Amino acid sequence: MSLKYAIIGSGAIGGYYGGMLTKGGKDVHFLFNSDYNQVKAHGLRIDSINGDFEINPVQAYNSTKDMPKCDIILVCLKTTNNHILKELLAPLLHLDSIVILIQNGLDMESDLSNDFSNIQIAGAMAFIYSNKTGPGHISHFGLGSINIGSYSCHDLDVLNQVNTDLRESNIDSQIVDLEIARWKKLIWNIPYNGMTVALNTMTDQLMINSSTRVLIYELMIEVIRAANRVGQGRFHIDEFLADKLMETTDRMAPYSPSMKVDYDNKRALEIEYIYNRPILKAREAGYEMARTSMLSAQLQFIEDTYSNK
Amino acid sequence: MSLKYAIIGSGAIGGYYGGMLTKGGKDVHFLFNSDYNQVKAHGLRIDSINGDFEINPVQAYNSTKDMPKCDIILVCLKTTNNHILKELLAPLLHLDSIVILIQNGLDMESDLSNDFSNIQIAGAMAFIYSNKTGPGHISHFGLGSINIGSYSCHDLDVLNQVNTDLRESNIDSQIVDLEIARWKKLIWNIPYNGMTVALNTMTDQLMINSSTRVLIYELMIEVIRAANRVGQGRFHIDEFLADKLMETTDRMAPYSPSMKVDYDNKRALEIEYIYNRPILKAREAGYEMARTSMLSAQLQFIEDTYSNK
Repeated sequence: MSLKYAIIGSGAIGGYYGGMLTKGGKDVHFLFNSDYNQVKAHGLRIDSINGDFEINPVQAYNSTKDMPKCDIILVCLKTTNNHILKELLAPLLHLDSIVILIQNGLDMESDLSNDFSNIQIAGAMAFIYSNKTGPGHISHFGLGSINIGSYSCHDLDVLNQVNTDLRESNIDSQIVDLEIARWKKLIWNIPYNGMTVALNTMTDQLMINSSTRVLIYELMIEVIRAANRVGQGRFHIDEFLADKLMETTDRMAPYSPSMKVDYDNKRALEIEYIYNRPILKAREAGYEMARTSMLSAQLQFIEDTYSNK
Repeated sequence: MSLKYAIIGSGAIGGYYGGMLTKGGKDVHFLFNSDYNQVKAHGLRIDSINGDFEINPVQAYNSTKDMPKCDIILVCLKTTNNHILKELLAPLLHLDSIVILIQNGLDMESDLSNDFSNIQIAGAMAFIYSNKTGPGHISHFGLGSINIGSYSCHDLDVLNQVNTDLRESNIDSQIVDLEIARWKKLIWNIPYNGMTVALNTMTDQLMINSSTRVLIYELMIEVIRAANRVGQGRFHIDEFLADKLMETTDRMAPYSPSMKVDYDNKRALEIEYIYNRPILKAREAGYEMARTSMLSAQLQFIEDTYSNK
């Protein structure tokens, strides 16, 4: 089975995975925005810790209306752009298309299913350090694995084929339970994304300072307890995962999470899906995420303050 | 009964109340630090909404060793300087002296009583907008009342005399229950002091933004619940006080609380007594101040970051 892929949002994440799939011999069609002319003329350049490479020519487009219908649509936009998905995706879909949201947060799949009630939807978590360092130029400097989970796929063979295609393209991919995996990723994302923005700092400084170190840990525990309340009877995440994530972060080089990069560039922050949806889900299950709510309010103030200027 | 007063820390608070007492005909001795020479040569100038005035000459000193023993010692230092009180106060005390701590926070009196087990201690809350605007120059631009409560005074006649002396000097003073009054002042101080520093803003912006407005209210409710847990069986503060304080702050001109002024001047922040002691007292009573703890950790990070530079 040979699948036709669309990459929606060809930046740090989409550019990397799309580039790797193309290099792996797969049929990949990229949607570009501001980088379109650069990529059409000079191709896509990926500087990776695993070896630099270029894709040229690229099957590049600047509108989904010009793209072919695809089997697999990898959405690699920030969730702050999800309101344009309805219009963006429509031209790409055939009856059996699967849309995979490679995004951080919770509940994006459910929102998308409200707009497209009949399509198959999956979610994915990317564990990767990569940046767009220039037009059509991606730098990949750590990790790279991807976890994919079905939200409403009836055709699991196709999802498994995606997993195989990724592996054949040298991407460490696996199929996981979407809900558990989304919450697990939030255990890291909620403390570090927000706290680096709120205190205008990087991960290492939060870990060195004894006050914020405790707070980061408390935030992790709060997310785990929220997840377990939501997942009651269905899944349980051990609180020891917080200790493991603290150790992992201690070993990392000083790092600016994606929200800190957005903040530094005065872009919209992914508050809705990374903070407000988990807070809401937990509240519905009877658990109040007090610290997470406070962080969300601070982030909203920060974003409102610079976006009003 | 004519009382001899010492003012320890003759800045925005001490300079104002000491100046008013002197103008009211009381015997007041001022400890100055950097402003000593200016005040000795040119006196103390107070620009007040109730009328400007000068005190000249001033009974000014630059060491408590040169001061007479006093009946009433008004401590108007920031709590971040309380570690020097042991040495500072010793020369001023006679057997019946009363030390009154005009400071924000909780538990300062108990710490002081560990150093001076036999003296009489009281606490006071100043409700005033004033600033030191230059050497020996105080500007008073709003309110001015003071609430005094006994911590360990056996001579309540003398404390009542202080209250009378203040009233005779045109200061709106009253005697209150110290523990309740300290907690009540924290209901305002904990949200606004910390949040203006954490988000580098002023009170009005926190009130206008809908996210931080809710958070400010939640912090107030948290402080009231902590107070009520600590005061169980002894006192109860109605949660409606939060609504009243929100309204009061809505009517205020944009304001930088004292901790924001300290932050702007890269001075030490009063985290210990305004945050950590209430958190500790509440925890001992079985109540976890989650939001207040988070704010305290953020403030500690901010202070550590600039004080390490």
